[in-house]
Amino acid sequence: MTPEATLAKFREHMVGPARFMNLLSCFELGVIDALRERPGLDAVELGRVVGAKPDAVEQLLHLPVKEGFVAYDPATGGYSLDALADLPQADLDRVLIFMDLVKVTMLRQLYYLTESVKAGTVVGLKEFYGYEGNLFGAVAEHKDLRESWATAMDAGTARVDPWFFDNVEIPAGARVLDLAGNTGLGAINTYRHKTSPGLHVTTFDLPEKEQEALENFRANGVAEHCSFIGGDVFREVPTGFDVVLIRHFLTLWDRSEVLKILHNVNKSLDVGGQVSVLVPVYQDDVREHDSRSVDFYPAFFLGCAMGQGGPQKLSTWSGWLEECGFEVTEVVVENPTDIPADALPLQAVVSARKTA
Amino acid sequence: MTPEATLAKFREHMVGPARFMNLLSCFELGVIDALRERPGLDAVELGRVVGAKPDAVEQLLHLPVKEGFVAYDPATGGYSLDALADLPQADLDRVLIFMDLVKVTMLRQLYYLTESVKAGTVVGLKEFYGYEGNLFGAVAEHKDLRESWATAMDAGTARVDPWFFDNVEIPAGARVLDLAGNTGLGAINTYRHKTSPGLHVTTFDLPEKEQEALENFRANGVAEHCSFIGGDVFREVPTGFDVVLIRHFLTLWDRSEVLKILHNVNKSLDVGGQVSVLVPVYQDDVREHDSRSVDFYPAFFLGCAMGQGGPQKLSTWSGWLEECGFEVTEVVVENPTDIPADALPLQAVVSARKTA
Repeated sequence: MTPEATLAKFREHMVGPARFMNLLSCFELGVIDALRERPGLDAVELGRVVGAKPDAVEQLLHLPVKEGFVAYDPATGGYSLDALADLPQADLDRVLIFMDLVKVTMLRQLYYLTESVKAGTVVGLKEFYGYEGNLFGAVAEHKDLRESWATAMDAGTARVDPWFFDNVEIPAGARVLDLAGNTGLGAINTYRHKTSPGLHVTTFDLPEKEQEALENFRANGVAEHCSFIGGDVFREVPTGFDVVLIRHFLTLWDRSEVLKILHNVNKSLDVGGQVSVLVPVYQDDVREHDSRSVDFYPAFFLGCAMGQGGPQKLSTWSGWLEECGFEVTEVVVENPTDIPADALPLQAVVSARKTA
Repeated sequence: MTPEATLAKFREHMVGPARFMNLLSCFELGVIDALRERPGLDAVELGRVVGAKPDAVEQLLHLPVKEGFVAYDPATGGYSLDALADLPQADLDRVLIFMDLVKVTMLRQLYYLTESVKAGTVVGLKEFYGYEGNLFGAVAEHKDLRESWATAMDAGTARVDPWFFDNVEIPAGARVLDLAGNTGLGAINTYRHKTSPGLHVTTFDLPEKEQEALENFRANGVAEHCSFIGGDVFREVPTGFDVVLIRHFLTLWDRSEVLKILHNVNKSLDVGGQVSVLVPVYQDDVREHDSRSVDFYPAFFLGCAMGQGGPQKLSTWSGWLEECGFEVTEVVVENPTDIPADALPLQAVVSARKTA
C-alpha cells in the first residue's frame, strides 16, 4: 500500500464519528421525515419545520446529498429523498435502531476505550453513569441504555433466532439445557421451534431469574415442557441433559472464562452428549472482504459492553471446544449474502460431542 | 442506488465511531510502537509490553490487520507493521494529532449534535465541561481541550499559512488590517512573507489581546511594522487600510453573522479597497469525489466548536461578498492532489474589491 493510500484510509477512520452522528442527526431532527412528507422543501422551510436554523440544516444535509441518500436541486434550493425514498421502511427502521444503539451505548463510552482495555472493565459506564459493571447490569438501572439496548437486541434476535433453530439439530425427546437462558425466552423458543414428543427444555441462569422465567413459561403455555434451574455457570453446570445450548453468551468473555464455561459444560454431560453454541465469528483471514464484524465488535465488547470478550475466528471457537474435551460435529456459518447489507455479525452454530 | 447499496452505506456510517477509536486505541496503548521496535511479537507478548490482556490486544488488532496497516502471521501468531512501516513519521504524527483532536473535541460532544443544532450552541461542552460558550472559549479554561486543539491548529496552519501567502497579492507598501488577528501572529507572518517598503500590518481583535500582541511584535522584531487596534468586528472595523485579511474566521459563523462582518469591512474601506478571505470550501457539487470536508466539518462546527458556522461552497462565499458591495477579483482553491491524503479541508483564497 502506498503512503498515500494509507493516509486516505486514516482519513476514512478519522471522519467516522462525525459522519455517523451527522447522518443520525438528520433523522433525529426530523429532516428526513419532513422530506418524505413534503419533497422539495428548501433549507429555510426545513429549518422552520424541524426547529433549527436553515444554515445548520444546510450544513447537515451536505453529507446525505454527497452519499446519494438525499437529492439537492441547485435551481430551487429544494431537497428530496433520493436513495432513502427507495429503502423499505422495515430496513430503515432496523438501521435506525442500530444507529441509536451506537449512539447511546458507544459514542461517548468509546472515549475511554484505551482505559477500558487496560482495566478490563467498561470505564465509560463508570465515567458517564457512575456504574461499575458491564452493560447488561447497567441497562437494568439506566432507562436510556435499557431502551436503546433492548430494542436493538429484540431486532437482532428476531433475525438470528429463526436461523439458529433452522440450523441446529436437537434429537427428538431430548432433555435440553439452555445455558445462561435468562428469563426463559430461549427455552420457550427452543420448545416451539423444535417440538418433539418428550422434548423438555430447562433454563439455567442465576437464581434471581427463576420467578420471571416460571411466569413466562406459564404465560406461554409451556410450563409442562420447560423448567428452571438456578446456579452459576462458572461454578457448576447441572447434570442430566442430552443437549446444552449456549447462545449469545460465550462472546461476552475472554478465553480463560470461555474455557471455564465449556469445561463445566463438558463435566456436566455424559460421553456423547451434545453442546451447540451460537456465536458471532470473524473470518479466519480477517483481510477477507466480509470481515464486517471486525469494524465494530472489538470496540463494542471492550469499550462499551464488557471490558473483555468479543467474537472469535471459527478456528478459535472450534479449538476451544476441542481443548475442553469436545469433538466438533457440525459448523454452520451465516452466508453474508443472506443477511441484510447493514447487519454486522456473521453468526455461526458450532455443534460438538463430548468425547472425554 | 439499490436498497442493498444504501444499506451497505449505512453500515459504513454505523461502524464509524468504533473503527475510529479501535484504531486510535492501538496507538494509545503503545501496541504500534511496540511492533515498530520489536516486529513479530504475539498477542501475549504485546499484552505484557502494553499492560493489557492478550485477548484484548488480539481483538483490537483485527481491524488494523484487516486494513493492511499491520500484518499477522498465523503460523507464529506474530504481528508486524505492514503499511504503517512505510509511512513517514511526519505523516503519522500529523494523522495522530488530528485523531486526538477528533477524540478530545468531538467523540463525546457529538452525542449532543442534535441538541446543539436546535440550541445553536455547543451543548456537548456544557454537558461534559459545564462550559457555556464555544470551543475557543473552552480551550482557555480546559487543559485537555487546549492541548489537543492547539497542537492540531499549529499543525494545520503550518500547512495552510505558507500556501495562503503564496496565493494572496498584497500591493507594495500597503496598509494591511489582519481582522480577528488574535495576538498578532498573523500580522507577523504577513509582514515576513510579504515584506515591502512601507508595508504595515495591524492586528484587529478584542482589546484584551493587545498586550500579548504588542509583546509578540517586539519579540519578533517587527514592532515598527506591526500594530494593534482593539475593537469588535460585529460593531465596527477601523478605517484607513488598503487591504483587509480575514483568515480562519468567517467559517465560524452563520450567514447573518458573516454578512455583518463583511458589511462592516466594506464600510471601513475606500472604493477600490481589497479584502482577502481564507476559507475552507465545499465543492459546488458536493457529490464530487473530493468533497472530503463534508464528512467532517458540519458535525465539527455545529456539534463541537460553535453551534453554528461551517465551510461554504465557493459560490456561496463569493455571493456573500457580492451581497456586501464587493466584486470578486481572484479565487484560488487548493488542489486536492497537492494536500496530504489525510487532510480534510480544501482552503480557498477569495479576493475582492470594494465597488460601492
